[in-house]
Amino acid sequence: MDELEIDAVAEVELDDPVLVEGLPGVGHVGSLAVEHLLEELEGESTLVRRVYSREFPPQVSVEDGVTELTCAKLHAISNPDGRDLLLLTGDHQAQTNDGHYLLTDAFLDIADEFGADEAYALGGVPTGELIEEYAVVGAVNDESLLESLEDSGVEFREDEPAGGIVGVSGLLLGLGERRGFDVACLMGETSGYLVDPKSARAVLEVLETVLEVELDYESLDERADEMEDVIGKIQEMEQQQQQQQMDVPTDDDLRYIG
Amino acid sequence: MDELEIDAVAEVELDDPVLVEGLPGVGHVGSLAVEHLLEELEGESTLVRRVYSREFPPQVSVEDGVTELTCAKLHAISNPDGRDLLLLTGDHQAQTNDGHYLLTDAFLDIADEFGADEAYALGGVPTGELIEEYAVVGAVNDESLLESLEDSGVEFREDEPAGGIVGVSGLLLGLGERRGFDVACLMGETSGYLVDPKSARAVLEVLETVLEVELDYESLDERADEMEDVIGKIQEMEQQQQQQQMDVPTDDDLRYIG
Amino acid sequence: MDELEIDAVAEVELDDPVLVEGLPGVGHVGSLAVEHLLEELEGESTLVRRVYSREFPPQVSVEDGVTELTCAKLHAISNPDGRDLLLLTGDHQAQTNDGHYLLTDAFLDIADEFGADEAYALGGVPTGELIEEYAVVGAVNDESLLESLEDSGVEFREDEPAGGIVGVSGLLLGLGERRGFDVACLMGETSGYLVDPKSARAVLEVLETVLEVELDYESLDERADEMEDVIGKIQEMEQQQQQQQMDVPTDDDLRYIG
Amino acid sequence: MDELEIDAVAEVELDDPVLVEGLPGVGHVGSLAVEHLLEELEGESTLVRRVYSREFPPQVSVEDGVTELTCAKLHAISNPDGRDLLLLTGDHQAQTNDGHYLLTDAFLDIADEFGADEAYALGGVPTGELIEEYAVVGAVNDESLLESLEDSGVEFREDEPAGGIVGVSGLLLGLGERRGFDVACLMGETSGYLVDPKSARAVLEVLETVLEVELDYESLDERADEMEDVIGKIQEMEQQQQQQQMDVPTDDDLRYIG
Repeated sequence: MDELEIDAVAEVELDDPVLVEGLPGVGHVGSLAVEHLLEELEGESTLVRRVYSREFPPQVSVEDGVTELTCAKLHAISNPDGRDLLLLTGDHQAQTNDGHYLLTDAFLDIADEFGADEAYALGGVPTGELIEEYAVVGAVNDESLLESLEDSGVEFREDEPAGGIVGVSGLLLGLGERRGFDVACLMGETSGYLVDPKSARAVLEVLETVLEVELDYESLDERADEMEDVIGKIQEMEQQQQQQQMDVPTDDDLRYIG
Repeated sequence: MDELEIDAVAEVELDDPVLVEGLPGVGHVGSLAVEHLLEELEGESTLVRRVYSREFPPQVSVEDGVTELTCAKLHAISNPDGRDLLLLTGDHQAQTNDGHYLLTDAFLDIADEFGADEAYALGGVPTGELIEEYAVVGAVNDESLLESLEDSGVEFREDEPAGGIVGVSGLLLGLGERRGFDVACLMGETSGYLVDPKSARAVLEVLETVLEVELDYESLDERADEMEDVIGKIQEMEQQQQQQQMDVPTDDDLRYIG
Repeated sequence: MDELEIDAVAEVELDDPVLVEGLPGVGHVGSLAVEHLLEELEGESTLVRRVYSREFPPQVSVEDGVTELTCAKLHAISNPDGRDLLLLTGDHQAQTNDGHYLLTDAFLDIADEFGADEAYALGGVPTGELIEEYAVVGAVNDESLLESLEDSGVEFREDEPAGGIVGVSGLLLGLGERRGFDVACLMGETSGYLVDPKSARAVLEVLETVLEVELDYESLDERADEMEDVIGKIQEMEQQQQQQQMDVPTDDDLRYIG
Repeated sequence: MDELEIDAVAEVELDDPVLVEGLPGVGHVGSLAVEHLLEELEGESTLVRRVYSREFPPQVSVEDGVTELTCAKLHAISNPDGRDLLLLTGDHQAQTNDGHYLLTDAFLDIADEFGADEAYALGGVPTGELIEEYAVVGAVNDESLLESLEDSGVEFREDEPAGGIVGVSGLLLGLGERRGFDVACLMGETSGYLVDPKSARAVLEVLETVLEVELDYESLDERADEMEDVIGKIQEMEQQQQQQQMDVPTDDDLRYIG
């Protein structure tokens, strides 16, 4: 295995496509969002590239007894009604600093090949607590990109994200800028504790506008309902525990009675 | 020391051999199994390769005062009654992600040299508790391999192994697939707490069928009996501790009596 | 991204300049000091180099919604009244041992380009407690440099810094020596708990002498006052907590009363 | 800085010298021993090589205000009465696995240059408790070396060292064997808690025999006495603490009295 091995699985002609990145991160917001896009646009989608690397963890995933070596995948979406897309998914990020730079350059090379010069990196920004309203926070690698995204409902906040943006998302912005790509990062607010379909939906609603696609959210909403159930059960269990702690007589109680 | 140094210790003509991997892992199931194969087939066995690497931990093992540099070993088994074999053993796995990819490619290169295009990666899958029945769980890198292994008693379970298969075993499946090898991973269930000869035996019983060898299990059974003794003693000690905790009068007891 | 990518942003003729390094470290003393120099000498300052590297953490910082890829920056100061300067700043140090050696060699290469053969590495030495007096402790890579620095108020102590000097500061001394640079490290004493503007000021007062510059300290003093306020509040909170602990009746108290 | 930079400081003709390695390790036994050899043989000693590497920690040590970049040093001892020696010392070991292999190969290259084909790696084997008798445990890379070392008082024990020998000492044995060097590792028993001059002495007493040198132990014995004092004080403090805990009346005591 070389540092990088890129399998060209198929070739598709795309017209000025947009790269959309959804590798695993906070709340799995980015990966949920891009996987939903893939589902919704399945009819127009073709797997075009698999990217293998020594920088990925040395493992295989197993499904129905059959294994698959860790890789990142790019699907081309030839979209008659909106922008053409190049969707980037995967189960893992690189495991070293070096690796992040190497892989992001590889993803930008592939985007170049397909004629893209715009990209969206999707992710989550953790709030540390469960929330009701789901804002989408943004960052761009050139200030000319601010206005139209603000018009599409993205919030640019003065001190966020604190600590910057790390990993492939951050480097798509950073290396993209040096290579002539316009890149924006869209981060859905999320607690950070759970896989968050509501946050993914908030991000997708922004993308619907900028990529000129229309999406159905039924399957994502189902996942959101499942999540609500899980949260509800956790909260019940916590209340029960507190109740029990209050009911047991303590040593002090017994001493006074005795 | 280069990245890799392979000593050709001897040359042996093998006919369509099978690579069998038993590097250290969960419960030492794989290494126990392959070491037992080596013992049983000693008469037909020749050490053919030693693999040294900067990716192995920088250490020597010591036996009777004499040292040996960390390496992986391959023995060729010229087997008149069944399949020819290439047995892979070692005391350590690679220490970095990079290293796993490098070493697995080296093992597949050697397998290539000897004319192999099939491999079995042996290991354990941890159950987290002591068990009575020892199933063998499987994963393959091509679905055409499922049926005959199911016929040989291997179980392919929907959600297992959770988290995939890591290390050299996983990469034998993953890189093997890209290089034209048919690879199956056989994992004996084991608690994960102890070195487990019973789990190794379960895996070997499957291999007896697929490799057309007949094995005697006396020495493995002896080790299994020793292990039962150890487990028995641990359980006794735990019961005694609980007994003692019950017998000591507590402060509360004394208070009521006083 | 190569191992190193150096953007030549502008060219400036400097006369026998001094490299002054202020990368992040203990108490942020070095970075505060060099950022203050940059502010004070803004009129004569030109950004000349940006250094990108795979050895920097893979991230972008965000300001007003616009991102910037991690890099180190060098500003040239053409100083009519004192020594010409090359100021080195950045938000991060390298993330591996290898990386520190690589980046320090790059900084010395750039210093070479601009005709420098002297350098000051600025940092902090932690005392572990809040202090009133701020000494500046020194280390040099050649004993001929000791005397004039002692005359400028730098203290050379027998057992300090214990454990030596690590990172880019240490290597500017170490690699600088092998490459013909005279290098001194100036470390302001600091608690190590806070960003310390008073320590930065102490270091700058030494530099004023050796670099023949005159500096105004108003903005640094403002930051120092803010820091005093923060320390004051922390101390108040601690006192209140102790007070509360003394006032609550304990179980023992109640038992005697009862 | 390249991967390796070796400064040839001086050249000395040696006759069939022995490489003696004393890099930092358990109880600092090896480094104490070799530093003592250097002191005792100062008259016949010449610094011949400094080895710098990106694999050493990126730091400088400081002595009397003057810095020195991390390196390993080799001194040549032209010894009229006994074996010629090449003494290897340093403040740090390599920081990565790769690094250990690289540096050990470099040390063996230098030994080759000076005509050596024998080496002693000195270290400590931790017992986990303070001891009275100091045995020297051994390991060799060829069984032909066992007998004469046993005659010199070295103990070869069946299960020791458990876990093998790691780092440069281990690799001198392992890589040395592949390169035609006869290497023995001498490990003085030591608690592992303190820098141990008595253990260093035990190892040197063996070396006196095999290297045909006579050593004076006055300065090592002084250090041993200092260590005894420190141990004595620690034991006193522990006894006082226990005493205090026995004297304070407990709540239970008070309850019965009341």
